[in-house]
Amino acid sequence: MALLVQKFGGTSVGDLDKIAQVATKILQAHQAGNKIVVVVSAMSGETDNLVAMAHKLAVIPDPRELDVLLATGEQVTIALLSIALIEMGCAARSYTGSQVRIVTDRVHNKARIVKIDQEKINLDLAAGKIVIVAGFQGTDEDGNITTLGRGGSDTTAVALAAALNADECQIFTDVDGVYTADPRIVSDARRMQRVTFEEMLELASLGAKVLQIRAVEFAGRYNIPLRVLSTFGEGPGTLISYEDVKMEHQIVSGVAYNRDEARIMLRGVPDLPGFAGKILGPICDANIEVDMIVQNVASNGLTDFTFTVHRYDFKRAMGIIKPLADDLGILEILSDDKIAKLSLVGVGMRSHAGIASKMFSVLGSVGANIQLIATSEIKVSVIVDEKYIELGVRALHEAFGLDKEPLQED
Amino acid sequence: MALLVQKFGGTSVGDLDKIAQVATKILQAHQAGNKIVVVVSAMSGETDNLVAMAHKLAVIPDPRELDVLLATGEQVTIALLSIALIEMGCAARSYTGSQVRIVTDRVHNKARIVKIDQEKINLDLAAGKIVIVAGFQGTDEDGNITTLGRGGSDTTAVALAAALNADECQIFTDVDGVYTADPRIVSDARRMQRVTFEEMLELASLGAKVLQIRAVEFAGRYNIPLRVLSTFGEGPGTLISYEDVKMEHQIVSGVAYNRDEARIMLRGVPDLPGFAGKILGPICDANIEVDMIVQNVASNGLTDFTFTVHRYDFKRAMGIIKPLADDLGILEILSDDKIAKLSLVGVGMRSHAGIASKMFSVLGSVGANIQLIATSEIKVSVIVDEKYIELGVRALHEAFGLDKEPLQED
Repeated sequence: MALLVQKFGGTSVGDLDKIAQVATKILQAHQAGNKIVVVVSAMSGETDNLVAMAHKLAVIPDPRELDVLLATGEQVTIALLSIALIEMGCAARSYTGSQVRIVTDRVHNKARIVKIDQEKINLDLAAGKIVIVAGFQGTDEDGNITTLGRGGSDTTAVALAAALNADECQIFTDVDGVYTADPRIVSDARRMQRVTFEEMLELASLGAKVLQIRAVEFAGRYNIPLRVLSTFGEGPGTLISYEDVKMEHQIVSGVAYNRDEARIMLRGVPDLPGFAGKILGPICDANIEVDMIVQNVASNGLTDFTFTVHRYDFKRAMGIIKPLADDLGILEILSDDKIAKLSLVGVGMRSHAGIASKMFSVLGSVGANIQLIATSEIKVSVIVDEKYIELGVRALHEAFGLDKEPLQED
Repeated sequence: MALLVQKFGGTSVGDLDKIAQVATKILQAHQAGNKIVVVVSAMSGETDNLVAMAHKLAVIPDPRELDVLLATGEQVTIALLSIALIEMGCAARSYTGSQVRIVTDRVHNKARIVKIDQEKINLDLAAGKIVIVAGFQGTDEDGNITTLGRGGSDTTAVALAAALNADECQIFTDVDGVYTADPRIVSDARRMQRVTFEEMLELASLGAKVLQIRAVEFAGRYNIPLRVLSTFGEGPGTLISYEDVKMEHQIVSGVAYNRDEARIMLRGVPDLPGFAGKILGPICDANIEVDMIVQNVASNGLTDFTFTVHRYDFKRAMGIIKPLADDLGILEILSDDKIAKLSLVGVGMRSHAGIASKMFSVLGSVGANIQLIATSEIKVSVIVDEKYIELGVRALHEAFGLDKEPLQED
C-alpha cells in the first residue's frame, strides 16, 4: 500500500464533467489499495477572473486582501471534488491551506511554505479517507491567508509529499509525460520513462512547461519521486527522480528550445572590475529578467558583453542600456530580437566530452550560424537565428538518437 | 464616537460598481468619526450558482463540503470590498468567519453561533481600521467551516454587534425602511421611524421580508438597536428597538399579509387528549411547516380542527391527512388553497380592546368574509378569500390611520 500525493491542475478540473472524471481516476487509485492525498488548483480561468475583478477596484490591489480573494478559487475546487467523491460512495474530506496548517512566511502573493501540520491528514488517511487539499495557499503564523504565487499548487503537492513522506508525488497534466523534444516540432519525439531532477530543472527552465521549477527543486531537495502523467489518458508518464543504478544512461536526454528571447551585445566594454554590475544593475532594478550572460576574455583591455532578455522586455531593456553606453564608454550596441535558444540536456554529458562539438557541427550542417554559447554541467545552449528553431531541434533530436528507446531503461 | 456594525446584503454588493458605492458609504460613516465593522453577503446570485454546481455533482451534496463551497461566496466579497476601501486610502482588513473565530455548533448548513472572539476586531478598531467580516459563515471547534443557512449574514451582523457591544446594528437593504403596509398595495403606506422588536418579529414572519427573523430575535435578546436603511439612498431608515418613553404610542403599527397559505379543516374531530398531536405529528415528520392552528371549544364531544400550511406543501399535506381521516374517525375534510392572511400588528394593542372588532367590521364593510381568526398579544390575523388581499390591506391601513405620522414620535 503506497501513499500517493496526486495533483490536478486548473485544466484538469476546468468544469464539472472534468471534476467528475478526476474523481473517478482518484477512486481507481484508492481502490487499488493506495492511500491518497489530492491537491487541486482553481478551475481554469477562475484565478484570472478574480485578479481581473481586483484590478477593476484598485490599480495595485492590497496584497493581503488579494490573497483572501484568490484563495477562494481552490476552495471551490476542493469542495466540488470532495462532493463528487462522496457521491461515488467514497469517504473524502477537503481542507483549505489554513485548515490543514500549511504555514508560510508573511510574503503575500508569493509566500514560501515553512511547515505543514500533518496530524489531521494522517488521522483521515488512517481512517481510510481520501484527503483533498487546496493548492497554492497557506496561512501565516497569525492566521492571515497567503498564496504561493502562480503554479504554487505543484509546490503544495511536493511539500505535502515531503511532509507526509509519500512514496510518490504525481502531477497530472494535459500531456502524458516529458518528451525528448517538442512533439509539435519533432514527430518522433519520445516520452521519457525517467529523467533526473537536474535534467528536469534544465528542461523546465528551457520551456518544457510541464512542471513548475520551484516544485522540481523542492522535490529534488527532499528526494520525493515526481511523476508527470496524463489526467484524461492512461500510461505511466515520466518519473523524475535521482539517478540510480537502474536508470538509463543516455548521454543526452532531450532537446529544448525557447523562441521568446532577444539578445543585446555591448561591444568594446572596458574590462574593469564591477563593470558587468554597472550594466546589469539598472536592468534588474527595472525587474527585467536576464537569461544568458556571456563575456569573453578581454583583449587590449576591451571585451564584448552579451546578455539575453525575454522578448517583451527587449524595448524596455534597450531604453535603459542606450543612455548608459555613453557614460560607460561603450563603443557599440548590437541587438537582435529574432533569435532562438536551442539546448541539449543530459546528465550523461558530465562524463562525455564531444557533445558540444557534435552539437555545433550538426547545427552547422543545417546552415544555422551559432551566435552565442553557454554551457553548464548537464546542458549546452546556443543562440541561433530564430528561423532555424524547427530545423535545428529536428537535426539534434535525430543526430543524438533520441527517438530510440535507451537500452538500459527498466 | 459610536461603534456601528453595518451589514450589506447580496444585492448591495451585486457587482463591482455597487461594491465601490458601498465602500464610499462606509467611508463616510468612518470619516464622521464612527468605528465601523462591516458584514457582507455573497454577491447576489453567487450562492445560487455554487449550490447549482454542487447539485450537478451529487443528489444531496455532503453538508460539510457544501459549507466549504458556499463560504467562498462571502470570502470573495470581503476581499473585494477591502481592496476598494484600501484603494480609497482607508485602512481596512477582511476576515473570514474562521479567521475571526465565529464559533458555531456542528450543524452544517444551518449552524448556530456559539461565541465570537472579539480580540482581533478590537485591536483593528483601536488602530483606526475598518473591519470587514464575512457573513453567513463560521467554524466549529475543530476548525471545520460551517454556514448559518440562508439569510445568515443578518445573524452574523447582530451577533457581532452583541459581542462587540456596538451602539447600533445597521442592516442596509434595497428598501429605505419598514413600512406600515406593502407600498405596492397601499400607495400612502408610511415608513415607520421606530418599531419594537416584538412588532418587527410579527411583521417579518408575516412577510415583510426586510429582515431575517432569527436576527430580530437575536437583537431583541441582547438589546441591540437594529436599523433598516437603504444602501443606495439616503435617510435614517427604521430603528427597531425596545419600547421606551420617547416612542410613538400608535395602537396599530402596520398591516401585513401573506398570500402563500392554504387551509385544511377537519370537521367532527373527537375531542380527546392527544388528538391534535396525532393529526400534526405526521405533517411535521414530513417537514411541512404549519402556520396557524385553530381549534374551537368542543360541543357534543366533537370539535373542528383547522391549520394552514404553505401553499406549495398543500397537496403533500392533503395526501398525509386523507388516509388518517378514516382511522381517526373524522367526519369531513374541508380545504382551500385560495386564501390569504391579513394581520394587524402593534404593541399598543396590548392595552386596547376593540382593535379586533374594528378590524372585523372594516373587513366586513368591504365584503370580505372572515374564515379563521388567530390573535396574539400584539397581533390579530384573519384568513380571508385571497381576492380580498389588496382591498383588505388598503381598508385596514386607512381605518387605523396608518398613513398619518404619529404625534408622539421623536
